[in-house]
Amino acid sequence: MKRTLTGKAEKSLNSFYWLACILPLLWLSGCKPQAQDRSSPPALRPELLPKFEAIKDLGLRQEKAYEFLKLITSIGGRLTGSPEADRAVELTASLMTELGFDRVWTEPVKVQRWVRGQAEEAMVRSSKLGTQALSICALGNSLGTSADGLEAGVVEVRSFEDLAALKDVVPGRIVFYNVPMDRTVVEPFAAYGRAAQFRVRGASEAARYGARAVLIRSMTFRVDQNPHTGLMEYDDRAPRIPAAAVSTAGAELLHHWLRTDPELKVWLRMNCRQEEPVTSANVIGQLTGSEFPDEIILIGGHLDSWDLSPGAHDDAAGCAVAIEVLRLIKETGLKPKRTIRAVMFMDEEFGGTGGRAYAASDSRKQEKHLVAIEQDRGGAAPVGLAFSLEILTDRLKPLLAYLGPLGINWIRTGGGGVDIGPLREKGATLGGLIPESQRYFDYHHSALDVPEAVHPRELELQAVILAMVIYFLAEQGV
Amino acid sequence: MKRTLTGKAEKSLNSFYWLACILPLLWLSGCKPQAQDRSSPPALRPELLPKFEAIKDLGLRQEKAYEFLKLITSIGGRLTGSPEADRAVELTASLMTELGFDRVWTEPVKVQRWVRGQAEEAMVRSSKLGTQALSICALGNSLGTSADGLEAGVVEVRSFEDLAALKDVVPGRIVFYNVPMDRTVVEPFAAYGRAAQFRVRGASEAARYGARAVLIRSMTFRVDQNPHTGLMEYDDRAPRIPAAAVSTAGAELLHHWLRTDPELKVWLRMNCRQEEPVTSANVIGQLTGSEFPDEIILIGGHLDSWDLSPGAHDDAAGCAVAIEVLRLIKETGLKPKRTIRAVMFMDEEFGGTGGRAYAASDSRKQEKHLVAIEQDRGGAAPVGLAFSLEILTDRLKPLLAYLGPLGINWIRTGGGGVDIGPLREKGATLGGLIPESQRYFDYHHSALDVPEAVHPRELELQAVILAMVIYFLAEQGV
Repeated sequence: MKRTLTGKAEKSLNSFYWLACILPLLWLSGCKPQAQDRSSPPALRPELLPKFEAIKDLGLRQEKAYEFLKLITSIGGRLTGSPEADRAVELTASLMTELGFDRVWTEPVKVQRWVRGQAEEAMVRSSKLGTQALSICALGNSLGTSADGLEAGVVEVRSFEDLAALKDVVPGRIVFYNVPMDRTVVEPFAAYGRAAQFRVRGASEAARYGARAVLIRSMTFRVDQNPHTGLMEYDDRAPRIPAAAVSTAGAELLHHWLRTDPELKVWLRMNCRQEEPVTSANVIGQLTGSEFPDEIILIGGHLDSWDLSPGAHDDAAGCAVAIEVLRLIKETGLKPKRTIRAVMFMDEEFGGTGGRAYAASDSRKQEKHLVAIEQDRGGAAPVGLAFSLEILTDRLKPLLAYLGPLGINWIRTGGGGVDIGPLREKGATLGGLIPESQRYFDYHHSALDVPEAVHPRELELQAVILAMVIYFLAEQGV
Repeated sequence: MKRTLTGKAEKSLNSFYWLACILPLLWLSGCKPQAQDRSSPPALRPELLPKFEAIKDLGLRQEKAYEFLKLITSIGGRLTGSPEADRAVELTASLMTELGFDRVWTEPVKVQRWVRGQAEEAMVRSSKLGTQALSICALGNSLGTSADGLEAGVVEVRSFEDLAALKDVVPGRIVFYNVPMDRTVVEPFAAYGRAAQFRVRGASEAARYGARAVLIRSMTFRVDQNPHTGLMEYDDRAPRIPAAAVSTAGAELLHHWLRTDPELKVWLRMNCRQEEPVTSANVIGQLTGSEFPDEIILIGGHLDSWDLSPGAHDDAAGCAVAIEVLRLIKETGLKPKRTIRAVMFMDEEFGGTGGRAYAASDSRKQEKHLVAIEQDRGGAAPVGLAFSLEILTDRLKPLLAYLGPLGINWIRTGGGGVDIGPLREKGATLGGLIPESQRYFDYHHSALDVPEAVHPRELELQAVILAMVIYFLAEQGV
């Protein structure tokens, strides 16, 4: 790219041109509210436009969302129940207090405490190949091995059907689920969804047939040496055996080594363990509604993360965006009619206890949650919006002309999240902003999920857009 | 993000679901071609769908576009007229031959040869501040300083109006254009377009008032120590003075140092120079049309780059995508009716001579270029399409249902590029794919434009989408 660019494509994205095009349209729609019936979406009030412009300018100039993300990630990994998670509770409560939100408080959540421990090693031992290191990490919730580790032969499978077919050779061995995310599935979350069942259920399925441990290929398209952790669950009807993730490069190597020496052994040592449950907290800050304080538009992220990295995309990004949304609305001088609330949920990765505790709290009795948004798909550039209620996607359509230049080109039905799920039963519409996702699983649950993997402007655009959407909802209701 | 995700948003992006939804629609539209008039776009033929699915699967499985990008960038910087640019000509010609394209050849282009030289240094010298290093690089086309460098006081300006107002203090000094890209402009290319005028015209404007040299703040939103080069031009009516870019961090520091000591001096040494023009080449490969071989759909990128990095986004990405588009079409067994041509243009960054030579070549006389696409906006995830002809954007609309899950949510009028510009006069419709651009200027023309800054799947999605669009155009004509 050489120098200046001309042409309509550029021009239409220039902010001045943008306002100039939209203002007349909005004045027109704003001038005839009487013509509006239930089937047509409420128009954008033209006096909102300079406020929206101010939100955009403030956000993009300061990039505070990224500053908040760096603050949260400076603590390091924030595994639920850990001292780091407690520090994140204190830090975000202080931050929101300092930002001058109308009310900031915490609500207790009882969480389990799984600890990775120090030793986490695996070796391939083979008469033909010698000794080879294998990059692994324990999966969350797994029990450890004995202090000396365990050593066994390996059975490689690509499906639960493979496992059933090989049930006679499984007893006493380690089952190696070598199931890559399907690269031909364009949407990485869909590919992840299919592959994750082996991580979640693989240990108990294999233990039923007599396996001693499981190794699960990491869930990422990239082939590298970083193992990706994540939750696994034990089925009470099967013996409990250790479960580890192996890096994708390690999985490829192990696959080839098994072709050379099917009798090779893997030695595995992990001293991860469950400790006593502890009390942690959700952290809540809000701008209280001027007319309907008990009607709530919620935006949240989860404060806990995995422990291999500071969890920048997952989910310091979501927490940072939630705080920045409220800051942008406050700093722009907007006074929402309904309450806009930022919630940093605890314990999304392990049990979702924070989300359930939030919904079940006695203090919710006086409140009606109209809309709950959970940002937990990473901090990349915005591409769309998704809400669980068709009528809401219709209502938001007038915003699209405004949000297009910011990257949002569609509103679909869909959306949800672990933490806000329990609010659905209480009548809330769930949803959120959908970011570009091609890079997300490169980082997800691995040592690579660091602040440098998040782009300050991309993250800020999320906050800018959500501030506009959330303020609009807080004014219009649902 | 914990584990599997459900909801319509995921489901709709799953490739199986995608085909299942679209097939009935396309069968319907395919069954009644007689109902189609000039005003309605031609429908997608349903037999195309499995071919498109095959293009997607092949592309995403192999990620060859990134492999081609790594090959091209392995040469290093490819400044027009340099030995490295010559090697890139040989390499891409060999690559396309090896891939078995129907015809591969080069066409000569006369290009200038600017050489950066070794010495490129700047220091701030101040009685109050001592000596401070300043990270700079020569701008392309600039002449050097004398062997000892030059030293002068500094005048900081933020506009050409500032410069005019300060014309009495400019003589004998270095003019420092400290004009940041406007962060509040959402579209980075628009912000770049506005700031780039100082880089291009700044030296001559300052020289008119008697300046001895210019320092231009680098064109990027990020604040770091990497200077970003780019073309500058001399106006024949003004004296020629050296022009350098200063990194954004350097610009911020210099701004503050000038507040402390307005009398500070900057010492600058560069030995960049123009050498004799040389003959280079455009590299061309094609799949020859089975019915209309002289009707051409062109996809191109530029092979030359700046020299501070291997030019991964700018524009190894465009070249790699062009080659991969043809490979995907060929490997999928598609036989286009019209010729599909990949052109690696030479000398986009300096003079656009490659594009002009291509359009003016005698061998073009028998040819009619229907559509020319230039990919020169980086290798990030696709977001839209832009074409210069309204009727073409209409014709491409049936593809949108198909391209939506791949990231394309709009087709607009617009588009173009330095190299394909001259083809417009010859009746070609210009256009291309628009990628996400928030990260682009972090890398652009700096040492940071390395392969690691490009994501293999994002780049491949560009190729997959363009292969579909280009094959469709090669079948339908325009």
